[in-house]
Amino acid sequence: MDSVQSTIDAISSVDQSLLDKGRAHMDNLTKPRGSLGYLEDLACRLYAFSGGKGDRLGVDPARIYTCAGDHGVAASGVSLFPQEVTRQMVFNFLNRGAAINVLTQCCNVQLKVVDAGCAGAPFPAHDLLVDARVRSGTDDISKGPAMDMDSCLQAIKQGIRLAETAVEDGCRCLGTGEMGIANTTPSTALFCAFFGFTPGEIAGPGTGLDEKGMQSKVKIIEKALDANREDVQSGDPLRIMAAVGGLEIACLTGLILGGASRGIPVVIDGFISTAAFAAAWMLSPHVLDYCFFAHASAEPGYLKVMEKIGARAVLDLDMRLGEGTGAAMGVHILRCAAAIFNDMATFDQAGVSN
Amino acid sequence: MDSVQSTIDAISSVDQSLLDKGRAHMDNLTKPRGSLGYLEDLACRLYAFSGGKGDRLGVDPARIYTCAGDHGVAASGVSLFPQEVTRQMVFNFLNRGAAINVLTQCCNVQLKVVDAGCAGAPFPAHDLLVDARVRSGTDDISKGPAMDMDSCLQAIKQGIRLAETAVEDGCRCLGTGEMGIANTTPSTALFCAFFGFTPGEIAGPGTGLDEKGMQSKVKIIEKALDANREDVQSGDPLRIMAAVGGLEIACLTGLILGGASRGIPVVIDGFISTAAFAAAWMLSPHVLDYCFFAHASAEPGYLKVMEKIGARAVLDLDMRLGEGTGAAMGVHILRCAAAIFNDMATFDQAGVSN
Repeated sequence: MDSVQSTIDAISSVDQSLLDKGRAHMDNLTKPRGSLGYLEDLACRLYAFSGGKGDRLGVDPARIYTCAGDHGVAASGVSLFPQEVTRQMVFNFLNRGAAINVLTQCCNVQLKVVDAGCAGAPFPAHDLLVDARVRSGTDDISKGPAMDMDSCLQAIKQGIRLAETAVEDGCRCLGTGEMGIANTTPSTALFCAFFGFTPGEIAGPGTGLDEKGMQSKVKIIEKALDANREDVQSGDPLRIMAAVGGLEIACLTGLILGGASRGIPVVIDGFISTAAFAAAWMLSPHVLDYCFFAHASAEPGYLKVMEKIGARAVLDLDMRLGEGTGAAMGVHILRCAAAIFNDMATFDQAGVSN
Repeated sequence: MDSVQSTIDAISSVDQSLLDKGRAHMDNLTKPRGSLGYLEDLACRLYAFSGGKGDRLGVDPARIYTCAGDHGVAASGVSLFPQEVTRQMVFNFLNRGAAINVLTQCCNVQLKVVDAGCAGAPFPAHDLLVDARVRSGTDDISKGPAMDMDSCLQAIKQGIRLAETAVEDGCRCLGTGEMGIANTTPSTALFCAFFGFTPGEIAGPGTGLDEKGMQSKVKIIEKALDANREDVQSGDPLRIMAAVGGLEIACLTGLILGGASRGIPVVIDGFISTAAFAAAWMLSPHVLDYCFFAHASAEPGYLKVMEKIGARAVLDLDMRLGEGTGAAMGVHILRCAAAIFNDMATFDQAGVSN
């Protein structure tokens, strides 16, 4: 707990006066005031992170950690895909054949694949792979807790370590990604526990369940909330994560806490990454200052969750794949915002009437 | 007219069976079916353009033409900025200080700046500049036609020539951009003439008019439609463009026709570019097959126009700057879609259970 708490304690809110100073700079650039819309807000936030010292803003190098973990609840039939697909997809990531490989390449973002607790044996060493394995998958949340508190804290610490490594490697932006068959189920359970939703309000089809599959998934999540009632109602984000979360989700919570504590932007991918964010946000409200929501997940509960958070997503492309695919494209939009802030001429410089 | 008509005649609809074939390929890649959402639709369309010959899909090199022109109606006070800003901004483009310079650089897109009819003297030669000047600005549409039919056809031909030059230079994707103080006014008039809107329904603040300025702008557009009633009601897109359009708008109409006739994707920027698209679409319904709408303009009439067109924008960032800024970012999203189609592993290749 110690390093988790000290990381949480190190997260401070962004200086609001720097947002205003950033805005004043944007208003002096050769364009109608505010005409770059949301891109301007993104630029002002990046300026505030930079501390207003006049350095060039930027997100490069940026790194996405795609954290993989398995879920005991997969045995309850909440996904179209069998549990072994988590492992198969990790190999696909390592062989550079998955969507996240293609999009990180196309968007010039580094990718690391993290074993945060996949079922089965550890993976062989690989240059893309980070071993952050706490245990081999979680237990079935519909029957009891996903993991004990020690495993949960270990997973969060692993995520904090990932952020620290990235910062030591010179990264200026982090992105979240995940892979874990069945992981919309614990994510939905987390949203219910954190925000008071019922499973029926926000459960969605995940990889593509039909109506009957959805109804069964809702029942499983209800069972999970019931089986872990005491923890769920405790209001303690760590107890809730241990009870109905997942190893890759807890690891991403740590990554988000670690990024925010170092004052660098963290680009949150989709539905599952947002569940990891929610836990981090419950642990420190200042986390929100450092996070950018890359894309509006097509998972139907996403918008309701975003209303609770009070944030908006950068992109809306009906994506629901995870892996960090939205985050990769979101990083590029942040890169554009930084470039606008850095490189546009002012009205005076360009001799344009204002 | 001859080369305009032959260009229009050369535009054929995209082979629908290739869209299905593209979809079958996407469904075989290692991701839940359809989970990349709109990105998958974009990829399938790029595949259909490619003719299904198995070449790698791509948009590179891509080129944006930012076409500048002046508007007699600027004298009626429909913009916050004086007319000389068009010229000043062209120099800003040439000096690489504007938003479009920054975003084309950041998104790896070529930029050409086109004098399609700015007020005043021609610009000195410059490596970024293309001289496509038909005349020095238009006449005030609130008092009569913007230009005669010959000028309108010349401007469209210039745009077709831009597309042909790009294709000869090896470009695989075109983007539209524009600069012209007051040009939301003729664009709104065009939308009214093409789609039957009243000015009050779709006129917006442009660069930032207040409520009083907006009311005055609506009255000016009503006057323009009235002063050019016969042309506006003719149903002839060329007569309508000559009457209430603009030189840079007509030039972009030509660019869109030229791109579509060569079968390459054209990324349409915002409100004004969409007016240019609308004219091209009225001239050939197949044009829509080749166009991608880069971003949802914050100009309030935009969504109503898109309903008429039946299309959706790729990005929604509340931008309303023009210049091609949205198109530059839209090109990158298309690039991502092409890469997904080209480079992801199939279930068989990756040994992932489907």
